Amino acid sequence: MHAVGVDIGGTKIAAGVVDKDGTLLAKTRRDTDPQQPAAIEDAVVDAVAELRKEFPAIEAVGVAAAGFVDPGRRVVKFAPNIAWRDYPLRDALEPRLGTRVVVENDANAAGWAEFRFGAGREVDDMVMLTVGTGLGGALVVGGELVRGAAGAGGEIGHLRMVPSGRACGCGHDGCWETYASGTALVREARAALATDPDRAKALLVLAGGKAKNVTGPHVTKAANAGDPLAIEMLAELGRWLGAGMAALSAVLDPAVFVVGGGVGAAGDLLLVPALTELEDQLFARAHRPMPRVALAKLGNDAGIVGAADLARR
Amino acid sequence: MHAVGVDIGGTKIAAGVVDKDGTLLAKTRRDTDPQQPAAIEDAVVDAVAELRKEFPAIEAVGVAAAGFVDPGRRVVKFAPNIAWRDYPLRDALEPRLGTRVVVENDANAAGWAEFRFGAGREVDDMVMLTVGTGLGGALVVGGELVRGAAGAGGEIGHLRMVPSGRACGCGHDGCWETYASGTALVREARAALATDPDRAKALLVLAGGKAKNVTGPHVTKAANAGDPLAIEMLAELGRWLGAGMAALSAVLDPAVFVVGGGVGAAGDLLLVPALTELEDQLFARAHRPMPRVALAKLGNDAGIVGAADLARR
Amino acid sequence: MHAVGVDIGGTKIAAGVVDKDGTLLAKTRRDTDPQQPAAIEDAVVDAVAELRKEFPAIEAVGVAAAGFVDPGRRVVKFAPNIAWRDYPLRDALEPRLGTRVVVENDANAAGWAEFRFGAGREVDDMVMLTVGTGLGGALVVGGELVRGAAGAGGEIGHLRMVPSGRACGCGHDGCWETYASGTALVREARAALATDPDRAKALLVLAGGKAKNVTGPHVTKAANAGDPLAIEMLAELGRWLGAGMAALSAVLDPAVFVVGGGVGAAGDLLLVPALTELEDQLFARAHRPMPRVALAKLGNDAGIVGAADLARR
Amino acid sequence: MHAVGVDIGGTKIAAGVVDKDGTLLAKTRRDTDPQQPAAIEDAVVDAVAELRKEFPAIEAVGVAAAGFVDPGRRVVKFAPNIAWRDYPLRDALEPRLGTRVVVENDANAAGWAEFRFGAGREVDDMVMLTVGTGLGGALVVGGELVRGAAGAGGEIGHLRMVPSGRACGCGHDGCWETYASGTALVREARAALATDPDRAKALLVLAGGKAKNVTGPHVTKAANAGDPLAIEMLAELGRWLGAGMAALSAVLDPAVFVVGGGVGAAGDLLLVPALTELEDQLFARAHRPMPRVALAKLGNDAGIVGAADLARR
Repeated sequence: MHAVGVDIGGTKIAAGVVDKDGTLLAKTRRDTDPQQPAAIEDAVVDAVAELRKEFPAIEAVGVAAAGFVDPGRRVVKFAPNIAWRDYPLRDALEPRLGTRVVVENDANAAGWAEFRFGAGREVDDMVMLTVGTGLGGALVVGGELVRGAAGAGGEIGHLRMVPSGRACGCGHDGCWETYASGTALVREARAALATDPDRAKALLVLAGGKAKNVTGPHVTKAANAGDPLAIEMLAELGRWLGAGMAALSAVLDPAVFVVGGGVGAAGDLLLVPALTELEDQLFARAHRPMPRVALAKLGNDAGIVGAADLARR
Repeated sequence: MHAVGVDIGGTKIAAGVVDKDGTLLAKTRRDTDPQQPAAIEDAVVDAVAELRKEFPAIEAVGVAAAGFVDPGRRVVKFAPNIAWRDYPLRDALEPRLGTRVVVENDANAAGWAEFRFGAGREVDDMVMLTVGTGLGGALVVGGELVRGAAGAGGEIGHLRMVPSGRACGCGHDGCWETYASGTALVREARAALATDPDRAKALLVLAGGKAKNVTGPHVTKAANAGDPLAIEMLAELGRWLGAGMAALSAVLDPAVFVVGGGVGAAGDLLLVPALTELEDQLFARAHRPMPRVALAKLGNDAGIVGAADLARR
Repeated sequence: MHAVGVDIGGTKIAAGVVDKDGTLLAKTRRDTDPQQPAAIEDAVVDAVAELRKEFPAIEAVGVAAAGFVDPGRRVVKFAPNIAWRDYPLRDALEPRLGTRVVVENDANAAGWAEFRFGAGREVDDMVMLTVGTGLGGALVVGGELVRGAAGAGGEIGHLRMVPSGRACGCGHDGCWETYASGTALVREARAALATDPDRAKALLVLAGGKAKNVTGPHVTKAANAGDPLAIEMLAELGRWLGAGMAALSAVLDPAVFVVGGGVGAAGDLLLVPALTELEDQLFARAHRPMPRVALAKLGNDAGIVGAADLARR
Repeated sequence: MHAVGVDIGGTKIAAGVVDKDGTLLAKTRRDTDPQQPAAIEDAVVDAVAELRKEFPAIEAVGVAAAGFVDPGRRVVKFAPNIAWRDYPLRDALEPRLGTRVVVENDANAAGWAEFRFGAGREVDDMVMLTVGTGLGGALVVGGELVRGAAGAGGEIGHLRMVPSGRACGCGHDGCWETYASGTALVREARAALATDPDRAKALLVLAGGKAKNVTGPHVTKAANAGDPLAIEMLAELGRWLGAGMAALSAVLDPAVFVVGGGVGAAGDLLLVPALTELEDQLFARAHRPMPRVALAKLGNDAGIVGAADLARR
């Protein structure tokens, strides 16, 4: 039987029908206003109705939501970008959809998809790192998602890497995502343009001559074209990724780290330095296998696929 | 039915009969030579035989071993203080004991006992911190022990807290246990005696006038007697505990941190600063409950009790 | 005989007549456009002419400029806020003023005034810390200002305190001024408003209810009124000051640290924690006297007074 | 006229006759007992008497002493390895030698020799780094040695590089010398032998198969023979040297860093990474010249030569 996965982001909803092998059979989208929970629900109901026209036998609906979800997977306790505070999303949707609904954190849903159908499918213990604007994560331990006692597990971007380190948007200092994210990359690029303009010329050209217009993709593009500074910047980001992987290995000892997100697209320019740093920092490496590091396989649909699969279980 | 738990340390073995409620009904000990695996097995067999005289109906034997244990819980892959390398401990013991045998890492066994019968028994997600000479740990996620893909999970004492930080015996720098352990406490005490002898007088008296004889219990004793330096030293250790708890909360979000081990005996002198630091560093604390911090309840028998319970499952 | 001191900032010029005891006898001001070096010179000439009407016997003119000044004290090599690049300021002014001109870095000039006539006047070795928006400094060693081989000495705000630490406007990470300046204070205040709104209520009230309007003086005001969070924030800033003082003591071993600038106005709320941290961190403190820590005495006129005195020598 | 320089170490005294161009004309040695100040003085008197037989016209005697020397250069306030505490060394020696005596810290004396006759002779601002067992230093600012208000200036090995960093023998954490010294090199070598024995084979062979016998010179030898691990270890040490040079550049802006001591013998394997890191970390590098980094030229006689020259001034 099929399930529907719905991925609710800040400004849009994506929904799709997923079969039991994780294949996405159909997909649709709706725009939403993050300040209007009722309108978000209307859009979900509407999208699911559209999908049901072609696939009437929908067993369950999984909803991936960008926020803390309670351990019972009914309530969104807090969402940074949507007006949900202790919001009973499952109870709001179940009667309108007429099927079982499961709510899950969006990063968890995406990680679950990689675990079940993507880069983590041959292991029981996996860490997914989503390196985008920030650094998100999902943890699978012994074949189960780690949700935490209050639904706040897996917030690995806020693992402190450096006491009194870089200022994070969360109000603390030294969080992993201040070193290993697209935002970190842009900041480093701008600093390089200020302190060493000669070396940063290739980046400046890509940014149309304005330091403030430099983006993460500019860095990746320059690196792919062989620019030494851009290559070094991705390597530095990769080393921070590897350092955090070593930290997580001391805690969880996963078999594989799956790297996704926009910055993950840099591939080996990122993964090779990450692997080297992980090996350097890994506790007791002479007495254990090295964890693998792999690129994510499912791309942007992972949230839909994972939410659907979680709803079916 | 009853099970036997056996706790194999570097120089002695403790074994006991445990009922299904975690009560230790009988206990015995043997001395061992860590360089002689065969002699260790003889001692285990002998101890279990002694216990069976009074409790013949032993259902299973759990063995807590100080080393990495494979995920199948048969083989000790590496032990820092015992001559085991990829050693098939379960297969060596099962035929001789004539019952099912389960091998588990000793810190995991102790943590499991706290989870089932001690300070963690009302939650599903718990982190146990054993603050002794080093800093050991056990993680329970969703009601299950975290073992890791290679049996190296829960080695939280080697989570890096400070890049280029204090040198750890493991060969790396900045590991948590270099800041939050009895060894750290002794080192700080000696440094204080060198840099600020006036302030460290109370410690020096307890150490019989010799800086090199200062021990962790001297610090706790001085602190309990009101010595300002000793109180500050325990508070500093407590703050490092709290900082690591915040790191683990970002990853695992446990409901409770259980603090055991010899240094844990300092109680509130340690726990209050730990709690303050945890609160200061906790990600998104305005949107989640604070984890609890509790002292361990089962003391030195936790390894026996936990191993027995794990064997019964 | 008298000398004139001229302090050229980003948007205004202050000039004054100073006698040999450091007394400011008369003072005048001009507004300037930092993009127009010629207009700045016109304003300096005009201001000096005004002062000469009352004090015709001017022996020399000292110019304090916010930038790197060459060791010969003729050329401003670089100024962050004024359009000078390798600019021969002395040669531009001397013929128009008809007296000897000396150009000096503005922080150095202010530090020199404290050394000669203020909080440092009884010692030979002094460090001045100006804790304003940023963290500036001036060093006196053996009775002489430290200028450095390229005029870049005394840039102590950019001493790295934390590897991979907070991002600094200079493009590097972990500079002292990212921890010990008014900017750091404001950032911490905003973070506290985000992570712990209950505790930060007093600050929010002073800021008219808007986190983004919080200023350094709000923190000082709240602290003076007894607000625990504001007191702790100033103490934290003070501890970073003390940590840097310990670093500078290992290098220079000054007799006194003079603390000035807007944040310095917090007085003991800042200086007591600074002193405690300095004592804790001071190398070999059992074998040396503690450096003194004192508030600056000359206020905003220090640049004029110091520049005049340097010109006279 | 000639002067005599005397270098008093922990177990031996070296003395020599030095002309005004820094040439060492004659030299002699004595063994000493660091616990017997009177015997040390006898040995100094005896050594100087021997030198005077050939060079009767000795103008002054400079004594380089391993300890804090008071600013008046009469008294050794504290010496870590010799039984001097507030010891009036100059007054003890002058009547017995019958000439003017000047006492100076030994690192300062050696640095002064490099400044006057060695790698620093063309500049006014120089920092000397002696990378031996520890990390010593001497600072020359504006052509004068920096002694500090209490004779404790130039103790740059105890500049804190990492908060909560590696434990230093001085009782503090994170001192520069815990990262940039022969002791640091040996520690890293042993850690590598523990964590990555395969990669460390070349070192182990040089150490005769025993990890605890590895020395700094083994690392240099292996690196010179092309061993990748040893090369990386010297590069890491070099990067820490460069990071500290950047810190000192923010404070003092010297024209040249002179690197001496036993580890300095590694030459470019050390200096190239140091220079790269210095350039990376240097404040405002786009607006100033890069400091030079040069090897010391005078070797072990620098203390004698510098002490003699200081006595003559």
